[in-house]
Amino acid sequence: MKKNLWLTCFLAMSCVLTPLSLSYASSKQPVDLVYPYLDSANSRWFFFDSASLPFGMVNLNPDTEIGGAWGSGYRYHSNDIKGISHVHAWQLSGLSVMPLSSTRPVAEIKNDYYSPFSHDSEIVKPGYHKFSLDRYKIDVELTATTRVGFHRYHYSPNTPQQVLFNLGGKLGPSELGHAEANQVASNAVAGYITNLPTYRRTRPTKVYYYAEFDKDIARLDSYRGEHVFPAVSGINGLNAGLLIELSHDAKPLLMKVGISYVSVENAKANIDAELSTWHFDKTREAALTEWNTWLEKITVKGGSEQQQRRFYTDLWHALQGRRIISDANGQYVDQTGIDPVIKQLPLNEKGVPLFNHHNSDSFWGAQWTIATLWPLVYPSVASDFTNSLLTYYKDGSMIPRGPSGGNYTYVMTGASSTPFIVSNYMKGIRDFDVETAYNGLMHNHSDKGIMAKAGYEHYTNTGGGMRHYLDKGYIPFPLPPEESSYGNHRRGPGQTLENAYQDFTLAQFANALGKEHDYQYFLKRSQNYRNVFDPESGFMRPRNLDGTWQTPFDPYQYENGFVESNPAQGTWFVPHDIKGLAELMGGEAVLIERLDRDFLVAEKQGFTSGTAHADETIESLRRSPINYGNQPSMQTAFIFSAAGAPWKTQKWSRRVVDAVYSHLSPERGYNGDEDQGLMGSLAVLMKIGLFQLTGGVEQDPVYYIGSPIFDEITLSLDNEYYTGRQFTIKTLDNGPDNVFVESATLNGEPLNRAYLLHSEITNGGELVLQMSSTPNPSWR
Amino acid sequence: MKKNLWLTCFLAMSCVLTPLSLSYASSKQPVDLVYPYLDSANSRWFFFDSASLPFGMVNLNPDTEIGGAWGSGYRYHSNDIKGISHVHAWQLSGLSVMPLSSTRPVAEIKNDYYSPFSHDSEIVKPGYHKFSLDRYKIDVELTATTRVGFHRYHYSPNTPQQVLFNLGGKLGPSELGHAEANQVASNAVAGYITNLPTYRRTRPTKVYYYAEFDKDIARLDSYRGEHVFPAVSGINGLNAGLLIELSHDAKPLLMKVGISYVSVENAKANIDAELSTWHFDKTREAALTEWNTWLEKITVKGGSEQQQRRFYTDLWHALQGRRIISDANGQYVDQTGIDPVIKQLPLNEKGVPLFNHHNSDSFWGAQWTIATLWPLVYPSVASDFTNSLLTYYKDGSMIPRGPSGGNYTYVMTGASSTPFIVSNYMKGIRDFDVETAYNGLMHNHSDKGIMAKAGYEHYTNTGGGMRHYLDKGYIPFPLPPEESSYGNHRRGPGQTLENAYQDFTLAQFANALGKEHDYQYFLKRSQNYRNVFDPESGFMRPRNLDGTWQTPFDPYQYENGFVESNPAQGTWFVPHDIKGLAELMGGEAVLIERLDRDFLVAEKQGFTSGTAHADETIESLRRSPINYGNQPSMQTAFIFSAAGAPWKTQKWSRRVVDAVYSHLSPERGYNGDEDQGLMGSLAVLMKIGLFQLTGGVEQDPVYYIGSPIFDEITLSLDNEYYTGRQFTIKTLDNGPDNVFVESATLNGEPLNRAYLLHSEITNGGELVLQMSSTPNPSWR
Repeated sequence: MKKNLWLTCFLAMSCVLTPLSLSYASSKQPVDLVYPYLDSANSRWFFFDSASLPFGMVNLNPDTEIGGAWGSGYRYHSNDIKGISHVHAWQLSGLSVMPLSSTRPVAEIKNDYYSPFSHDSEIVKPGYHKFSLDRYKIDVELTATTRVGFHRYHYSPNTPQQVLFNLGGKLGPSELGHAEANQVASNAVAGYITNLPTYRRTRPTKVYYYAEFDKDIARLDSYRGEHVFPAVSGINGLNAGLLIELSHDAKPLLMKVGISYVSVENAKANIDAELSTWHFDKTREAALTEWNTWLEKITVKGGSEQQQRRFYTDLWHALQGRRIISDANGQYVDQTGIDPVIKQLPLNEKGVPLFNHHNSDSFWGAQWTIATLWPLVYPSVASDFTNSLLTYYKDGSMIPRGPSGGNYTYVMTGASSTPFIVSNYMKGIRDFDVETAYNGLMHNHSDKGIMAKAGYEHYTNTGGGMRHYLDKGYIPFPLPPEESSYGNHRRGPGQTLENAYQDFTLAQFANALGKEHDYQYFLKRSQNYRNVFDPESGFMRPRNLDGTWQTPFDPYQYENGFVESNPAQGTWFVPHDIKGLAELMGGEAVLIERLDRDFLVAEKQGFTSGTAHADETIESLRRSPINYGNQPSMQTAFIFSAAGAPWKTQKWSRRVVDAVYSHLSPERGYNGDEDQGLMGSLAVLMKIGLFQLTGGVEQDPVYYIGSPIFDEITLSLDNEYYTGRQFTIKTLDNGPDNVFVESATLNGEPLNRAYLLHSEITNGGELVLQMSSTPNPSWR
Repeated sequence: MKKNLWLTCFLAMSCVLTPLSLSYASSKQPVDLVYPYLDSANSRWFFFDSASLPFGMVNLNPDTEIGGAWGSGYRYHSNDIKGISHVHAWQLSGLSVMPLSSTRPVAEIKNDYYSPFSHDSEIVKPGYHKFSLDRYKIDVELTATTRVGFHRYHYSPNTPQQVLFNLGGKLGPSELGHAEANQVASNAVAGYITNLPTYRRTRPTKVYYYAEFDKDIARLDSYRGEHVFPAVSGINGLNAGLLIELSHDAKPLLMKVGISYVSVENAKANIDAELSTWHFDKTREAALTEWNTWLEKITVKGGSEQQQRRFYTDLWHALQGRRIISDANGQYVDQTGIDPVIKQLPLNEKGVPLFNHHNSDSFWGAQWTIATLWPLVYPSVASDFTNSLLTYYKDGSMIPRGPSGGNYTYVMTGASSTPFIVSNYMKGIRDFDVETAYNGLMHNHSDKGIMAKAGYEHYTNTGGGMRHYLDKGYIPFPLPPEESSYGNHRRGPGQTLENAYQDFTLAQFANALGKEHDYQYFLKRSQNYRNVFDPESGFMRPRNLDGTWQTPFDPYQYENGFVESNPAQGTWFVPHDIKGLAELMGGEAVLIERLDRDFLVAEKQGFTSGTAHADETIESLRRSPINYGNQPSMQTAFIFSAAGAPWKTQKWSRRVVDAVYSHLSPERGYNGDEDQGLMGSLAVLMKIGLFQLTGGVEQDPVYYIGSPIFDEITLSLDNEYYTGRQFTIKTLDNGPDNVFVESATLNGEPLNRAYLLHSEITNGGELVLQMSSTPNPSWR
């Protein structure tokens, strides 16, 4: 059935399945509705996860492609399992293991051990994965706790029970360097692998492991490069590996693999803390239950089965990608200095860490995604990440915009974590050191801070163009030649817009903290977007160092002054001052008409630049004025609401959801790059009809109401942070055509505005939307 | 003059220069007599050192070849300086720097910066090196303290004053991995380079540096691989480099580079402790004085100028190669576990470390070289190394036989450090934890100890053949197939002989400590040499697992059961029981006659297998019964003394000295492999006519008297350990033909034996030898 569905989609080259019922009432739990195969034909290394808990350090799944950061990990249409690895993070990979049953010599096995598999007998769930290695006739089951991978291998009767640890070579984003593996008990092997530096993560990063079996080790054979070392007690070096043969009995083999970035001792301690027993089935059930607990924080009724399945798949993605890197005991590795330093997170009186430390891909776009979803539904996650970001600041004197390996990566541009932190504060998530955060953000927005750094600009503060931003109020494109070899993503007008928006969010923070001078200063800077608006063309336009405009100017040329977008897309990036933007364009009516036209154009190619990241290099597809396959256009549908035309938001946000975020096949999913929870969060927010154009940085942050796709949506509120128990959004007469809000009530009283305040949601209550097939311009 | 001399040698293909005077009385100090160019045409990475103190952590000199462990470092006939690097150790290299004066872009410089130089304007001394970089017209001067390299660069007027730190690529024995370089002060750059693992040193080893200039840094440019990063504050990664441009003034540039294996902080602290001023000339003078102080512990009179120069060159080599790895504050890195751990050496009440920690190439052959020379003349060095070896034992549970990078390398075979430690104890050097040492040696001689490991056998205890040695009393050659892929140097009969001798030395230790049972046990094991003697052929001979002899048997085949030697050479390896060996051979007369014949044969090819290590692979040259170009034959001339024919020792040891250790040219020196102080020490000992066949493990250790080449030799005794002030050896009527001892007196009394006891020397006194052109068989 799954397969047939997919086949239909594939043949039809389009996969918006018509809902069978407009009011699907699932008897399944949210965890059962997740469709893990989504988009997995186009995977990035960290995109697909099976045996992994929310934000888990361990992300255990089979890899069918291992040759790079893109197109690797578990890819649906690749035929061979090339290993089962424990860490699928941005810029990082972990221990890869492979169960085997072979009498061939190690010298052969090491060069030829991949196994075909098929999807027929496969089961994939959040927290669980089962498949068969056809070559060895081994049934493999995987599950996990936060920091421990748990394996169960069903070998064929009377065959060798072996596990290969291949510790070298390329594994996803990382070339692996020096590794260590030593037998440390009759039934355990431990050591580390090294993720060699990449362009983005410039320091080597060790991933320690402690692998414990429920049977004794009978023999260890090993290799290093082309050299075989038989019957060893361990191995180390470059391109090394270990073939572990277990004492034979008829039972399946169990293996627990604790992971740590700190030490072997901590990898073992993580097992002791999280998985001291050998009950595989119980652990699997616990993993499924854990996921369900997280997912059911939002329950939905109505919509089609496919819509519900896709919704929980989106929510599942929103809770992944950005990984825990601290151990159960709260230790972590600070790599902001030249040598790794083991440090300790603060503990509560019971010795439990007050928060977790994290890796994270960029916060570029977080203001419209995780910075809304997490604080609202998972405020403890928002708190965790805020404290984690501040830990980096204490360690390395900058608040990161996408750390990996315990260090800055300077991924993308700007001070993209500012809106996230400010928004959390405004939402009452304040269990962090507010003064430290403020100081860190102030530094971040200076010419010595992260805003001054272009993408991956590790050694200088030049490519961010900050001196021009401070001098002239805009960043030229191109930069003068002597400043033109610093970092990536040097896109002057795009950076100007980003900085201006982030300055606005910092201004709000300053205001909330009573820092009037800073408030005025950053509020002024937040108007810098005006300096790159060209009245003649009506676009945000690249501007030269001398103040003249780029000529000739092509507003649809990709990366022409705008990061991962074109000027037409970039022009809409003034989320904090739509009124100001409208003025520049000639008034709100002009703005609305123009944005409407852009949507009409973009709709012709499905609101994206193709259906997968691989398409995004196709020049013709990039010329669209809107691209919902990546961050730069995420907010566009909600600009209508800010401009006084929420019915247009209702229309276009629903059409985008239908076209871009409704498929349910391995071939399509996010039609671009999910980017570690960002697009998953965006889809969730658009589907529940709540969106924060400014990123939620008002004193009582504003949520624009969109066009929820379900009949009933209930958010469970976390009473550690919020007073209400739950907030429900009901839609009456909702349907594929009834996408417009005719009228609304909040807690039974008429609501004559198209937005909610944060407090209105978090105090609990019920929003009821009467849906209609025609817009109601007076409800706004 | 030097050059002419060399030219003569070179053309003559032989370089035993006839002494101009039989009684040369030098007015020069020992340090001025050292000829650093010796054998430098055939360098290994660590062989040539100029700006380095005895056992210095820093060994600063220009490299003309950098492409491997062999044939690299400063090689006399290579034309280009490829960098000036700070660590020339076995298996390790340090920071390489290059002064430059160029306006070319970094992208070009990084691929093309070598400079030709010539020997014409060069000055090389122990502790000092001066040369010109012709390409850049920079005069370079180098000197050093123990842990700090000191550079003075005389740039041409009005040219850029630059220094390139190339942090990647191949540097001698190591491929360099991840590196770090950051500006840490207005005039300082610091970071580390990584020595990637080698076959021998299996763990990555960082070398930290702190480089301080006497001018401010004007600009830093950098690269990583093919990518250039301009105007940076630092750089890191693989194949990275930093071009430092200094503020310009007319003065020469001074640069101090502190080195540490522990941290940047310690690298800086090493500067603070050893070189807090900027006085280059004073530092150079201090280095020369330091060397002179060490060298003049042995003074000589008489002999030719060349003999004296060569003698101090030998002594200079005996004090190098094995390097200090602990910092001035006594910290060091323990790498015996999977992660580096910073540890602290014990300190005295003033905070000064009680000893230094060391790297070291193998102790294979130490019993006839450094284990005699160091305890006698430099007992504090012997103490230092003993304590260092025991530190490894405490850290990693084995006493090493050649550690590098803070870890075992398992270089060569056997428990080769046993004789060294036992000999030190017997000589009264007991300022170490004797019980710990004994326990460590006992473990080393077990089937779990270092004796059970073949060469570089890191992961198993199989290739050493210890189970066979313990079962059968010999190690088969070849080992059974299932044991035949473990480590290198699996040479059963040779290993059997080594183990037996080392067991003998441990037996002596047990006896001295009153451990009667152990004494008897190891004494019995010391007779195992008998199990590989084949009475039929009269040789030590490879023996099969089933007890049969190898057939057919070629006693002159290289490595046929003997490590780096042939069975004929190996047969003489029973230093602890010449009487027993004589019995096996048919009596002392047979042994003497046979050894005499071997010397006659060996003399035809100069007692070596060619004149350089490179020759040693030539099969025909390897078939000699004696090879004084490597360790296995070092003792052979003194076997005569033990067999009651000291006049044969006098004859052949003198001939070997003349033929093998008398040249003074870049082309020849040790006619094989000097091996970090081993051959240097051997040459010194043979030239002063003192040799310990057993390695000096008797209760009052025995020194056989050979044929000293000088008229007067005075050993200054270290009164921290010994009661005498000095011991003098005078030879009367010595000369090229008068090599035999006619008679002797010790402190004025007739000495009617051809040996001295350790106490007789260390109590001080005078040995007078009446030399003659004819042997006196009654003096014995």
